[in-house]
Amino acid sequence: MDTIHSNPAPEAFTSRLEYRVSYADTDAMGVVYYANYLVYFERARTQLLRELGLPYREIEARGIGLPVLEAKVDYHAPAEYDDLLQLCARVGWCRGARIQLLCEVFRHEVLLASGYTVHACLDLKSRRPVRMIPELGRLAVS
Amino acid sequence: MDTIHSNPAPEAFTSRLEYRVSYADTDAMGVVYYANYLVYFERARTQLLRELGLPYREIEARGIGLPVLEAKVDYHAPAEYDDLLQLCARVGWCRGARIQLLCEVFRHEVLLASGYTVHACLDLKSRRPVRMIPELGRLAVS
Amino acid sequence: MDTIHSNPAPEAFTSRLEYRVSYADTDAMGVVYYANYLVYFERARTQLLRELGLPYREIEARGIGLPVLEAKVDYHAPAEYDDLLQLCARVGWCRGARIQLLCEVFRHEVLLASGYTVHACLDLKSRRPVRMIPELGRLAVS
Amino acid sequence: MDTIHSNPAPEAFTSRLEYRVSYADTDAMGVVYYANYLVYFERARTQLLRELGLPYREIEARGIGLPVLEAKVDYHAPAEYDDLLQLCARVGWCRGARIQLLCEVFRHEVLLASGYTVHACLDLKSRRPVRMIPELGRLAVS
Repeated sequence: MDTIHSNPAPEAFTSRLEYRVSYADTDAMGVVYYANYLVYFERARTQLLRELGLPYREIEARGIGLPVLEAKVDYHAPAEYDDLLQLCARVGWCRGARIQLLCEVFRHEVLLASGYTVHACLDLKSRRPVRMIPELGRLAVS
Repeated sequence: MDTIHSNPAPEAFTSRLEYRVSYADTDAMGVVYYANYLVYFERARTQLLRELGLPYREIEARGIGLPVLEAKVDYHAPAEYDDLLQLCARVGWCRGARIQLLCEVFRHEVLLASGYTVHACLDLKSRRPVRMIPELGRLAVS
Repeated sequence: MDTIHSNPAPEAFTSRLEYRVSYADTDAMGVVYYANYLVYFERARTQLLRELGLPYREIEARGIGLPVLEAKVDYHAPAEYDDLLQLCARVGWCRGARIQLLCEVFRHEVLLASGYTVHACLDLKSRRPVRMIPELGRLAVS
Repeated sequence: MDTIHSNPAPEAFTSRLEYRVSYADTDAMGVVYYANYLVYFERARTQLLRELGLPYREIEARGIGLPVLEAKVDYHAPAEYDDLLQLCARVGWCRGARIQLLCEVFRHEVLLASGYTVHACLDLKSRRPVRMIPELGRLAVS
C-alpha cells in the first residue's frame, strides 16, 4: 500500500502554486468536477519540477517522459467557482524508474483534496523505462 | 485497503458502453490525457445505473446525490485518438452510506485502464449522508 | 462574411451522430459549458469525414492536417446532463486550401446550437497550406 | 455583422491576466486544443469583471446571469504546453440586454487568438432578459 511506503522526509521540498477556479472546471452539482483535481495535480507537479530547476519541457527536451502509471484522489471538501486554490506537490518516494508525487489542494488553510500520482521514467524514443533523472531521484527519501 | 474489502460477486452485473475518443481527449503526448479516464469512469457508471433501471437523473430527482469521495486509476496502456473504447462498470462493495464502483476501459480485448470510485449517498437538501438507495445496496456482496 | 459565401448545396450530405451529455460537460449553471459545443462540433465533423470514407486518422496518415482557423457558435437553448444529442455536420464551402464545415446540435428536433469551423489544409511536415484533399473539395458547391 | 457595430472606445479599459498552459489544454497535434480558447476567453472576461469591481460571483448574487449567446474565435498561431499567455478582455458594445466582450490571447507580444462573446443579461429566477447591469452598460461606446 503506497501510503506505507511513502515516507516523505519531513523537510521534503513542497512547491506551491495559486490557481483560480474557472466556470469550465465546475459541473452541474455547482462544484469542481472530480476529474479536474487530476488537472490540478498536473499543475502542482509542473510547478514542483519548475521550482526544482527541472521544467518538464526540459525533461522532454532530454528525450525523457514521465507518463502516469497510477493516480489517486481523496476528496475532502468541494472547491467552487472563482475559488483561489493553493496547489501543493512534493516527492513521495523514488525507486528505480518510478517516482511518486504527493499533491494537495487547499483553499486558504482548508484541505479540499489530496492524493498522489506514480510516474515511470521513460525514454521517449525507445518507449523503455530508464533510471530516474538524478535530480529527482536524489530528492526522495524511501 | 480497498482491494481487500472489495469482493464483487463473480456474477456481479457489469455494464458496457462504447465510446469514441475525440481529439479533445488527447494531449501533446499523442494519447488520452490521464484525467479523462475519470470522465470515462463517470460515463461507465452512468451507464451502469441506467442499465440497473436507476438513471442518475432519477436519483437526483429523488433528492439524492452520489458525490465522489475517492478515485483511483491504474494506467496499463494508452488510448489514442479515434479509438473505440469499451467502458465497463460494476458494483464493488456497499456499506452503510457508501458504495464502491469498479471501472475498466478496454480497446477490443486489451485492458487500458482500471480503477474505482467510492461514493457517498447524500441527501441533497440537508447535505447529510443517508442510507444507500436500496436498489444499489442490494447489488453488492459483503 | 462567411454566411454570404457559404452556399451549401441543398442536397449537401449531412452526417449525424448521437452523443450523450456527461456530467463533465456541464457547469455550475446546470447546463453544458459553452466551450464544449466546439468539442461537439469536432465529434460532428469527425463523423462527417468517416461517413465520407475519409477518417481523419487516414488524412493524417497521408501527412495532411486540417487545423482550425475560425470557429463560430450560436447558442439557441442549453443542453443538460444526460441529454441525448444529435450532432450534425456538412460541408459549407471549399476554396483553395480552405474548407468550411457547418455544424448543428439538436436534442430531438430542437436546435440547441449551430455554427461553423473553417479549416486549412496543411502539409504536416512543411507546415504549409496545400490544395484541399480532392474528396472534400469535390463536395462543396461554389 | 458584429465587427461593424463593435466600436470599442480607443480608451476602452482592457483587463490582462497571465495564464500558464497545462498539458490538459493540449491535444495530439501538440498544441492547445481549439475549444480551450473559449475557456481562456472565460478567464479573460472574469478578470475584466473583477477589475471593473464587479466579480461575476457578485453578479450572480444579485440574481443576474450573463449566459453566452454567441462566440467567435480567430486562430492566428498555436499556443503550446507550458506557454505563459496573456489573456485580455474589454467591452465591445452594449445594447439593451446584450453585451459584447472582445478577447485576445497573446504570448509575449504575439497575438495567438482573438474573438468575442455576446452575452444576455438574464434574471436567474424568471429566466427573462433584463436591462444590462448599469456598471457594464456605462462602459460601452456603441
